[in-house]
Amino acid sequence: MSPESITKLTQVAENGLLDRRLFLRSSGVSIAALFATPAPAREPWMNVTGKPFSNYGQPSQHARQVRWISATAASPANGLSWTPLHQLEGTITPSGLHFERHHNGVPDIHPGQHRLLIHGAVKRALSFDLDSLLRYPLESRVCFIECGGNSNACWRQDPIQTPAGYFHGMLSNSEWTGVPLAVLLDEAGVQRNAKWAIAEGGDAFAMNISLPIEKLYDDALLALYQNGEPVRPENGYPMRLIVPGWEGVLNVKWLRRLHISDQPAMSRNETAKYTELQANGRARQFTFELQAKSVITSPSATMKLPHHGIYPITGLAWSGAGKVARVEVSADAGNSWAEASLQTPILSKSVTRFRIPLRWTGQPLTLQSRVTDDTGYRQPSRPELLAQRGRQGYFHYNAITSWHIDSEGFVTHVYA
Amino acid sequence: MSPESITKLTQVAENGLLDRRLFLRSSGVSIAALFATPAPAREPWMNVTGKPFSNYGQPSQHARQVRWISATAASPANGLSWTPLHQLEGTITPSGLHFERHHNGVPDIHPGQHRLLIHGAVKRALSFDLDSLLRYPLESRVCFIECGGNSNACWRQDPIQTPAGYFHGMLSNSEWTGVPLAVLLDEAGVQRNAKWAIAEGGDAFAMNISLPIEKLYDDALLALYQNGEPVRPENGYPMRLIVPGWEGVLNVKWLRRLHISDQPAMSRNETAKYTELQANGRARQFTFELQAKSVITSPSATMKLPHHGIYPITGLAWSGAGKVARVEVSADAGNSWAEASLQTPILSKSVTRFRIPLRWTGQPLTLQSRVTDDTGYRQPSRPELLAQRGRQGYFHYNAITSWHIDSEGFVTHVYA
Repeated sequence: MSPESITKLTQVAENGLLDRRLFLRSSGVSIAALFATPAPAREPWMNVTGKPFSNYGQPSQHARQVRWISATAASPANGLSWTPLHQLEGTITPSGLHFERHHNGVPDIHPGQHRLLIHGAVKRALSFDLDSLLRYPLESRVCFIECGGNSNACWRQDPIQTPAGYFHGMLSNSEWTGVPLAVLLDEAGVQRNAKWAIAEGGDAFAMNISLPIEKLYDDALLALYQNGEPVRPENGYPMRLIVPGWEGVLNVKWLRRLHISDQPAMSRNETAKYTELQANGRARQFTFELQAKSVITSPSATMKLPHHGIYPITGLAWSGAGKVARVEVSADAGNSWAEASLQTPILSKSVTRFRIPLRWTGQPLTLQSRVTDDTGYRQPSRPELLAQRGRQGYFHYNAITSWHIDSEGFVTHVYA
Repeated sequence: MSPESITKLTQVAENGLLDRRLFLRSSGVSIAALFATPAPAREPWMNVTGKPFSNYGQPSQHARQVRWISATAASPANGLSWTPLHQLEGTITPSGLHFERHHNGVPDIHPGQHRLLIHGAVKRALSFDLDSLLRYPLESRVCFIECGGNSNACWRQDPIQTPAGYFHGMLSNSEWTGVPLAVLLDEAGVQRNAKWAIAEGGDAFAMNISLPIEKLYDDALLALYQNGEPVRPENGYPMRLIVPGWEGVLNVKWLRRLHISDQPAMSRNETAKYTELQANGRARQFTFELQAKSVITSPSATMKLPHHGIYPITGLAWSGAGKVARVEVSADAGNSWAEASLQTPILSKSVTRFRIPLRWTGQPLTLQSRVTDDTGYRQPSRPELLAQRGRQGYFHYNAITSWHIDSEGFVTHVYA
């Protein structure tokens, strides 16, 4: 595309945001016209027989993407690792890069010995091994898991300067396949007075937490497969509870027990943790559903735009309440907004990829994205969130993230 | 579910096929009620700190799934490896298990040195490096790739006795993300008389093949990402041509050149190979679009049903022409048919998972599946396919697969 036609590209919001429909057929990237040749010479790797077949493939050594690990040397099995959202594309998170949060490491569970017990306020207690579960009807759901503590660096006084995935990347998205919990609960016969299920994991922490039984009947899965293959060990092998759209800690890994009860357990992870200190000094408990959120994954902090021109702005949006209805992007810190294109299919409680082009001419600017979900809820600005929730928060941060691009093209995380 | 209620389950086709809607809430699997305990003892792995975090995860050592490799010791770099469809669930193929077909091994391409050249009948030849391509608009498509030679063991006189994936598993399904070819072709300015693009790969075979340029404008992608991360080396790193719904060989890996022309190249892979010898002795060339096909992946040959009871029958259906409209399953070799449930979302040129329950009481029976796509095309029986195409075929086999279950529960592949 020639420089003249670039000047004709329609700006739809301040500081160079261009109509998202340009992305359909006309890129406006003029830098790609490098040179022409009649026929290229063979590259060195075309003159040697390549590597043989493999039983199980691995990423290229030239494109190594890693989970960042946040854990201390003193306690290496209690911590987390981050999905590098800023390096990924599309919507599926590769299973090897799904975020982790463990309290006492990844257990080496022998599937032949593992059982899931459903007991308590049921007509008959049941114990399921993996083989018997595979006789049940399976269903698949593409959905995200997000830790309730994701993005919590944004509660700090000063904005953290790391790429998007390394403070928003306790968020991953998979195709989970398993047995609907409703089927197993019906099999056990839940008693009328039962309101809670206390889920327990088979790790050395014996992680336990309480869930309202309605959610299990609604859309919860006992996942046996993740992205087509058995669930990875760090994600709960051989079985994980999946509660779409609800905070990550409830998606109990290595699930070994559901104790049906009329009361919650009041365990560590629903009292000391995952509660929210409000502006009035009281703590809010049992905040299950994750509110709508979005983040621009490229560009993000620590990157640099190498030269002036048109850049694809892209990111992810999601909502625990349902589908993404709309994503808007601003290049002037929220004064003007342009609608981004959304990748289809848009699935409920799954991440949605959004894109919009930006023409950057060297002016400093501040990029933001905000999502509206199909309930009408719109992601708040940071000042709006702080006004609602005070400054003592630690969990459930879902405000707009702002990336500043300076005149040299350097990208930093700012509060705006 | 009690034995009495099992007897009330509605049979919808002969030999025990049950209404697919049973899968929604009521499994009919009575074997799961094993025993009840008040609270289970801690398992051994709960008494030791688990494994630490990892930068990139791997499957469980207890659930190892592998691609079978078909290649000779004399020529280890020319062959293929199979996706174990019979072991997978859902619709996404894990990238490590995507099938491979290489002619001279997997090249170790340095991304900084790799270029894609578009030249020939264009206004200006263009050369793209990876960085410049990343400035273009990206799009994602979930679609299958199937080798034109997939399932070709079924042309043999006697049915092959391997699990489904090891003769139907040159089929895999991924979320591919890349630049629409239409954008790059517009940038180069394709001349009016141009009808073909000759694609060349950067491997030691320099695989080349001709594609009608309309397909590239329609829905082809230059894929840079597969299931969220950079394309794996064996699947074309750093870039692969994706032509949704068309035979696998056209999805050229390690793409380095598109030569735009008014004529096809008449290369090895469009003359000596991937052509179809017809009943009349003539060969059909340029069979691009893959016709609708389905296969039951569980149960499949070499498996054994361990005891009488209800089993989930599941498999995959797909069509190069569009969406799967319907899948029917028979348990009496095609005399009576029952409609299977289809996993949503149903995407065009992507695999669709189907499921239906079977109550097996010990009678010998023959399972089949057949798909109808949204053009109205219905998968043929094997006799129908042979009547159309003769017995000398090698490519594009898409007839119904039959699994026989004997009175002991052993599953074999039969022609029916």
